[in-house]
Amino acid sequence: MAQTTIRHAEVLNKLSFEDFVEKLGNIVEKSPMVAAAVWSKRQFYSLKGFHKAACDFIDGLPINGKEGLLRCFPDLAGTLAREGRLSADSTGEQRSAGLFDLTTEEQTNIARLNSRYKRKFGIPFVLCARLNKKDAILRGLNIRIKNSKEQEVETGIEEAKKICWLRLVDVLQGEQVNIMSKL
Amino acid sequence: MAQTTIRHAEVLNKLSFEDFVEKLGNIVEKSPMVAAAVWSKRQFYSLKGFHKAACDFIDGLPINGKEGLLRCFPDLAGTLAREGRLSADSTGEQRSAGLFDLTTEEQTNIARLNSRYKRKFGIPFVLCARLNKKDAILRGLNIRIKNSKEQEVETGIEEAKKICWLRLVDVLQGEQVNIMSKL
Repeated sequence: MAQTTIRHAEVLNKLSFEDFVEKLGNIVEKSPMVAAAVWSKRQFYSLKGFHKAACDFIDGLPINGKEGLLRCFPDLAGTLAREGRLSADSTGEQRSAGLFDLTTEEQTNIARLNSRYKRKFGIPFVLCARLNKKDAILRGLNIRIKNSKEQEVETGIEEAKKICWLRLVDVLQGEQVNIMSKL
Repeated sequence: MAQTTIRHAEVLNKLSFEDFVEKLGNIVEKSPMVAAAVWSKRQFYSLKGFHKAACDFIDGLPINGKEGLLRCFPDLAGTLAREGRLSADSTGEQRSAGLFDLTTEEQTNIARLNSRYKRKFGIPFVLCARLNKKDAILRGLNIRIKNSKEQEVETGIEEAKKICWLRLVDVLQGEQVNIMSKL
């Protein structure tokens, strides 16, 4: 894996900023600014190095920037999903978690919890769907909704970083790879 | 105008963050995170107040964030324009500046300057096309290419703020309004 990620880093280092942003623009949902900012930090020596630079950028955002980044994520099993308006990345992620196969009761339950969550925190519930199944997601919503706003911004950001890592690997390998253990 | 912008601010204050981001997501090109971050700063009492909050957010970005923001803008009269892949906002702006009506010589000239500019600075040449015509844009490119990187990041960001203001007014008024003098 080490050799592979070095080769992938070399691919990244050779890209113009335009190709870089086009290729990696959605590693953070609807926030190409993140990849575009990280381009300034070349050279990269591994995918982990690139991911760390993206995480450092996100960590350096002011609190409303972190909230803003989270607000660009769609609800899990929400209106955009029902209307077929999710990004390709989100569609695949939500499908893998079983969120397109909810019973009517589960759908009602998650919609109610998503609404309560958004009303309480002013951000959507962000969770790495590819690392969870629908039951775990519903449990997570029920638990996290009891947290403080500060905790939820922090937790959402950490989930966004996991999503970012998996999307990054996808872009560069062209397939889903289970390398979370390397993080 | 004051009464109108207060009414517009009231409209903004009533929007959910999802509607806010959908409506204002492109006031900074391909960077919905900006509007999404500024939602945290409600209530707004005028459009200028909202615009100031957006500018404050942009000014607070680290230098690579500002560069990243600029890298999300397309070239003026560049490949995306020729291929019909500009955002709707950018299409209207570049058309108003006459950039869809260049002679072959002008097209060659601007392409050469855009390339040199990007090679020198690692960002695209960002300029508020609606406040300029093609001759002024070519002159601007010829002049600004002699600046330092620091100057160009700063100048590009100030241009992005002007673009942001005009797009904001467009979104809320549904038409182009010449109120730059109010800035």
